[in-house]
Amino acid sequence: MTVQSAWTAQQSHIWPLTAARATDGMLTVGGCRADDLVAQFGSPLFVVDKADVLSQVRRYLDAYVNVADELAGDVFYAGKAFLSVGVARWLLEAGLNIDVCSEGELAIALAAGATGSQVLMHGNNKSEHELQLAVANRLRFVVVDSVIEISRLARAATAAGVTMNVLVRTTVGVEAHTHEFIMTAHEDQKFGFSVASGAALAAVKAVIAEPALHFAGLHSHIGSQIFDADGFVIAATRLSELAADIMNECGIAIENLNIGGGSGIAYVDSDDPQDIAEFGSTIRALVRESFTAAGLPLPHLLVEPGRSIIGRAGVTLYTVGTIKPVHIDEDRTRVYVSVDGGMSDNVRTALYDADYTTVVASRVVSADSSTTLARVVGKHCESGDIVVRDAMLPADISPGELLAVAATGAYCHSLASNYNHIIRPAVVAVSDGSPELLIRRETIGDILSRDAQAGE
Amino acid sequence: MTVQSAWTAQQSHIWPLTAARATDGMLTVGGCRADDLVAQFGSPLFVVDKADVLSQVRRYLDAYVNVADELAGDVFYAGKAFLSVGVARWLLEAGLNIDVCSEGELAIALAAGATGSQVLMHGNNKSEHELQLAVANRLRFVVVDSVIEISRLARAATAAGVTMNVLVRTTVGVEAHTHEFIMTAHEDQKFGFSVASGAALAAVKAVIAEPALHFAGLHSHIGSQIFDADGFVIAATRLSELAADIMNECGIAIENLNIGGGSGIAYVDSDDPQDIAEFGSTIRALVRESFTAAGLPLPHLLVEPGRSIIGRAGVTLYTVGTIKPVHIDEDRTRVYVSVDGGMSDNVRTALYDADYTTVVASRVVSADSSTTLARVVGKHCESGDIVVRDAMLPADISPGELLAVAATGAYCHSLASNYNHIIRPAVVAVSDGSPELLIRRETIGDILSRDAQAGE
Repeated sequence: MTVQSAWTAQQSHIWPLTAARATDGMLTVGGCRADDLVAQFGSPLFVVDKADVLSQVRRYLDAYVNVADELAGDVFYAGKAFLSVGVARWLLEAGLNIDVCSEGELAIALAAGATGSQVLMHGNNKSEHELQLAVANRLRFVVVDSVIEISRLARAATAAGVTMNVLVRTTVGVEAHTHEFIMTAHEDQKFGFSVASGAALAAVKAVIAEPALHFAGLHSHIGSQIFDADGFVIAATRLSELAADIMNECGIAIENLNIGGGSGIAYVDSDDPQDIAEFGSTIRALVRESFTAAGLPLPHLLVEPGRSIIGRAGVTLYTVGTIKPVHIDEDRTRVYVSVDGGMSDNVRTALYDADYTTVVASRVVSADSSTTLARVVGKHCESGDIVVRDAMLPADISPGELLAVAATGAYCHSLASNYNHIIRPAVVAVSDGSPELLIRRETIGDILSRDAQAGE
Repeated sequence: MTVQSAWTAQQSHIWPLTAARATDGMLTVGGCRADDLVAQFGSPLFVVDKADVLSQVRRYLDAYVNVADELAGDVFYAGKAFLSVGVARWLLEAGLNIDVCSEGELAIALAAGATGSQVLMHGNNKSEHELQLAVANRLRFVVVDSVIEISRLARAATAAGVTMNVLVRTTVGVEAHTHEFIMTAHEDQKFGFSVASGAALAAVKAVIAEPALHFAGLHSHIGSQIFDADGFVIAATRLSELAADIMNECGIAIENLNIGGGSGIAYVDSDDPQDIAEFGSTIRALVRESFTAAGLPLPHLLVEPGRSIIGRAGVTLYTVGTIKPVHIDEDRTRVYVSVDGGMSDNVRTALYDADYTTVVASRVVSADSSTTLARVVGKHCESGDIVVRDAMLPADISPGELLAVAATGAYCHSLASNYNHIIRPAVVAVSDGSPELLIRRETIGDILSRDAQAGE
């Protein structure tokens, strides 16, 4: 297959690294043609560019692990963004660890060959069973989130005769998103122990008091889809203050400082998230500065990227079904382009008012061709079933053409439903011209298999 | 099992008809104890009160079918709210028809024994295959939604040598919700043909022009969670005007007028949806008045309730896992009560900012006992994972207790995901002291079964 041109430079930060056009204009990712992929794996289809994932992994390793720095730590991939056995294998082989927050995510990580020492467990409400699994698999860290859980984990560890490494999840009163952050005294959210109220220090003491638990450090996650490190200035200061209190009152230094995830990606052209390397060096400088100023030894820095590793690598391919011009006022028409998926495979538009970028996958639309204001909608029986709110698409868009929606690698398949009994698409990895199935397409038989009265 | 008391009268409009308390205070639905149900089918659990569903069905039949009235028509249950083979069987046996909008929903209806004449098909983007299934099964009505679809359906019907009954979906410029409605000239949404722009009349003519299609009437759906019929005044007028145009230009009377669904239910105490009978008689009066005023014969009235049939019948049972007081300002504390499900089994709170009512299922909380401002949250790794935003729960709420969340019968299991690889709960029907499994609890094995590389 001949690749004619690299992707337009303008949008290269939105589309996967290997996105290109074949000589006939067909979108290719990982050297695989969109039409071939749909023919083989069905439509809609999630396509994951393995090269893009591995490139992001290398950036993270270079920013946080391969640094000549006492802060050098580890990267834990946030499995909630997207997790399959195949992807987990790539990440583990590349040197990442995995952050799980349920029995199911742990099962995937273990099926991919992870050892307990490569896994960290999160969650505000881990079940007794999940904590027992954490203990049985000797997970590297359990991030504790409530006083109840500290005793629960201590009991499970004691029963198994092991010592578990524990990070205490704190809330530092900073909430960051894109280029903004807000500071609060108290955070009204389910996660973490408040630093300001003293709950965090009390939780650390409770962990220290449990012989079966080893206090291994602090955790703080300040937001999602964050574009710069500004919010981390306050976070680092407050964490170093807490660290100083812990040193003063307990005589214990913070071994690990887990700054959570939240690094953003570009969904639309105007999105400009900071580069991973720059983000990492800023964070390291902030932590170094605040801990040094407080007279504390430097902790290992842990980070939990999810979206910023898998988000851009993912593209959804849809087939256009119907096209309908709708008068939105006397002078304007919006063309509703309906595709064969929708809020069942991407609920983010409805759930978070998220923006996406889409192009026709099946041909190159020249710059001087006529375009129209379009809205890409799904096939669900709900008016909020919108995939891409605003898109300029060719005026002659027609049924059967393929659309590609960018940056759907994170939180799309993860949040997928069977709304309207619509089956979930396959997820296929592409690399060097070869597709590799990660998750097979669902069938109506799969849905019926849970219906207890279907066979009667 | 002895039932001690009927449900508190105050909340009887929120909870299922048969909700009661056993002598020890345990919540019972359909004569089944919440604790027994959870022991048998797992937690979380969706419980569906069959008596409540059938009671709502009778109300609908009395309001729209069993009326001494030329408008007497049919009720089509909107399967998107919740559909399983068992529930579809109840409804079909009781005299309802089923509204489906996908191959999957049709498969469930057919598996329940529906004949094509009991099924109506919706959708803004039915696939060619779905239209072929509609034709092959001789569905009672196909509601067409675009010009493209009209020719597509005509081709499929012609190929099969049958004539299909078609309703034309219109948008009348009314959008209704609870007690409010707004009027617009043009509707910026994916569904329907605009009456105001002339698109609806043109679509009717396009249907009439197709020999394989029979123009069987009009469809209009003006909103969701509607509490009174005020919005239908304008809708009925505009539909009768369109009907008059159709009579004038095509000489054809409207056989069927499908007014869609959208009747609301009570999620919280202050919700006061109009009674089904009253709603029905108001609608009939409006249609009678507007069609008579226009000098037109009366159509059969079709209606598509979903939520108002299955919504109140459903209750979700959760087990409390962790409890955490969080300072939300200097003087106030919110208790975060984490349960073993969340946005994977009820995304409506996050998606629509929906309110819910919850009580402790495992005991009666006396009126004079101490309560606390609580937020019921799920176990997902997301701060927006909220089940019930504000609830007054007993101050001594503790892990292991069961919570019941009311009115989760519609759009909860339908929209359920495997976010965080958390399995979807079972759905169990209860009636006369016996549970009957409708949908079995998912397993991690189910999730792994789609992972193409899990077995390697």
